[in-house]
Amino acid sequence: MKSTGSQPLVVTMGEPAGIGGELVLKAWLGREKWQTPCFFVVDDPSRLQRLADRLEWHVPIVSIEDPQSAVDVFSSALPVLAQHLPGSSTPGHPDAANAPAVIGAIREATSLVMAGQASAVVTNPINKQVLYETGFTFPGHTEFLAELAGDASEPVMMLVCPDLKVIPVTVHLALIDAIRALNKSQIVTTVKTAAAAMVRDFGIDRPHLAVAALNPHAGEGGYLGNEEIDVIAPAVAELKAHGLSVSGPTPADTLFHERARQTYDAVICMYHDQALLPAKTIDFSNGVNVTLGLPFVRTSPDHGTAFEIAGTGVADETSFISALSIAAQIVERRIGNNQPGIQRATGSQRV
Amino acid sequence: MKSTGSQPLVVTMGEPAGIGGELVLKAWLGREKWQTPCFFVVDDPSRLQRLADRLEWHVPIVSIEDPQSAVDVFSSALPVLAQHLPGSSTPGHPDAANAPAVIGAIREATSLVMAGQASAVVTNPINKQVLYETGFTFPGHTEFLAELAGDASEPVMMLVCPDLKVIPVTVHLALIDAIRALNKSQIVTTVKTAAAAMVRDFGIDRPHLAVAALNPHAGEGGYLGNEEIDVIAPAVAELKAHGLSVSGPTPADTLFHERARQTYDAVICMYHDQALLPAKTIDFSNGVNVTLGLPFVRTSPDHGTAFEIAGTGVADETSFISALSIAAQIVERRIGNNQPGIQRATGSQRV
Repeated sequence: MKSTGSQPLVVTMGEPAGIGGELVLKAWLGREKWQTPCFFVVDDPSRLQRLADRLEWHVPIVSIEDPQSAVDVFSSALPVLAQHLPGSSTPGHPDAANAPAVIGAIREATSLVMAGQASAVVTNPINKQVLYETGFTFPGHTEFLAELAGDASEPVMMLVCPDLKVIPVTVHLALIDAIRALNKSQIVTTVKTAAAAMVRDFGIDRPHLAVAALNPHAGEGGYLGNEEIDVIAPAVAELKAHGLSVSGPTPADTLFHERARQTYDAVICMYHDQALLPAKTIDFSNGVNVTLGLPFVRTSPDHGTAFEIAGTGVADETSFISALSIAAQIVERRIGNNQPGIQRATGSQRV
Repeated sequence: MKSTGSQPLVVTMGEPAGIGGELVLKAWLGREKWQTPCFFVVDDPSRLQRLADRLEWHVPIVSIEDPQSAVDVFSSALPVLAQHLPGSSTPGHPDAANAPAVIGAIREATSLVMAGQASAVVTNPINKQVLYETGFTFPGHTEFLAELAGDASEPVMMLVCPDLKVIPVTVHLALIDAIRALNKSQIVTTVKTAAAAMVRDFGIDRPHLAVAALNPHAGEGGYLGNEEIDVIAPAVAELKAHGLSVSGPTPADTLFHERARQTYDAVICMYHDQALLPAKTIDFSNGVNVTLGLPFVRTSPDHGTAFEIAGTGVADETSFISALSIAAQIVERRIGNNQPGIQRATGSQRV
């Protein structure tokens, strides 16, 4: 797979009844202010034009034939690689007829980044229930991308906030199933993937990872659950034996206050809410999902389709802008600081 | 049971190898600064004297025969109702020989508050593993107090921080057992108890309670777990039918950021860490446990025995002082603002 820093980022449309479209318009409009990296979106140009008109935002929209054109277009217009929407795209009212196009945009973006024509994928939020109704069978975006990537390694989700990085070992499972699924090998793999990413993608030389306990009081010596003794502590021991800087299992309720956050570079969490609850509590707007363990860079904003405000223009673009910036920074780090880096409107801001 | 506002608070010794003793000394030393309500402690006077000497803190310690004497003594000395410790009380090194005295102090405090000789109980942290070794069978302090109180109603734990109140429906259970134990009737009972306490004990006229979901994304319509559909939503519906102001089940990760906290008076959580993680993340030092559903007022600081720093004097007294203040305020509210209120060194500070 080719990967050079001169390629634009590719953004997927996400659910067209959600806020993805206006986030894309905002990111382009604020390209100087936000130092938005050069990107193009796989979307329906006419629906984006209607949305811009509705919001009375002046966004020239240009259909491009190939990703590289985005680099020339970006300073003066929003580059769009066309993906026609057969259904209606009324904000707040998803139309299942569009599901194949929503999925098609993800396929197209993945294919372009795999071919080296885009430097990273930034995905807009989808509505899984709409997709499920039309036969989509993946528990989430990430699992679908992993399937498209055809990679044997398991994807690992990292939520990156300015002040906290969290990595859940299990993600889109009912809580009871997450507990049942917890195993030493997955914790070990997740920590190794996370530790490697901290070095390669975030420039942290010798990262220290804190591993959260599953049970209250970290199981209190087995009185409140055995997963710490049977699963988590052995995983931590194995990781230490591999030379990684890891601590835990630590009671999760004591891991996230301000002073505790100074003691590690990231927290490995046992289930979805254990990771996302502290991250969103500390910083609701700035979180970015980074998918590790894929053969390409992928980020996404840490929010949903927000149907209730879609089309009004009030959606907070912070997380989406951060998703673009962090994707660009990871690409730059991966290709090395001596290379030209990806195209951007102005400078760059480090995470 | 008698209950008047002129009685002192009773404090238990907690684990004598932990930080309880120095918190008591600090609370008494700072009685003017903190406006500490009048209290006495059930403890071993000689071990407290040794601790004060070791720390070079000037705390005159006076053994009292009956609780009412504390009111006369408090301004000039720390009143102690003697509970002899048969074992050693070396900071950081618990001695199982003291377990009966630790438990005895809790029994004594409960008995005094039940008899109306103390206005409320404030418990210092115990080390359950030490007690378990000597035959203590309760999952926690709270369950033991409920047993001593001989009350049919179930105790409900509320964690009170200046900026957040959380009430877990299940508490000291392994996470998988907490999920299995979750049922509609317990959620309904917990919310009713919490709502009544918000009015009676915290002076909130028509409290709004947010009910957290158990599963990620609140179960996403059943794709990520059924407890929301089968258990939590029906409980919320029943509570609404009772005329209570309740919302949910709401995805837990979106419930605790600053803006979300403006939308409710308290959050009902499904398990221990779901409640304590956000509370301790937002405010690690100030949390106070308030036990609702007992026939008396009971609070406790939101931390453990902290063996690693016990005896050094560095323990943060904030939560213990808040536990005393909140207990006193609840007592005052319960007896009505027109009555004299409990004895305190100077004024009072509202939560």
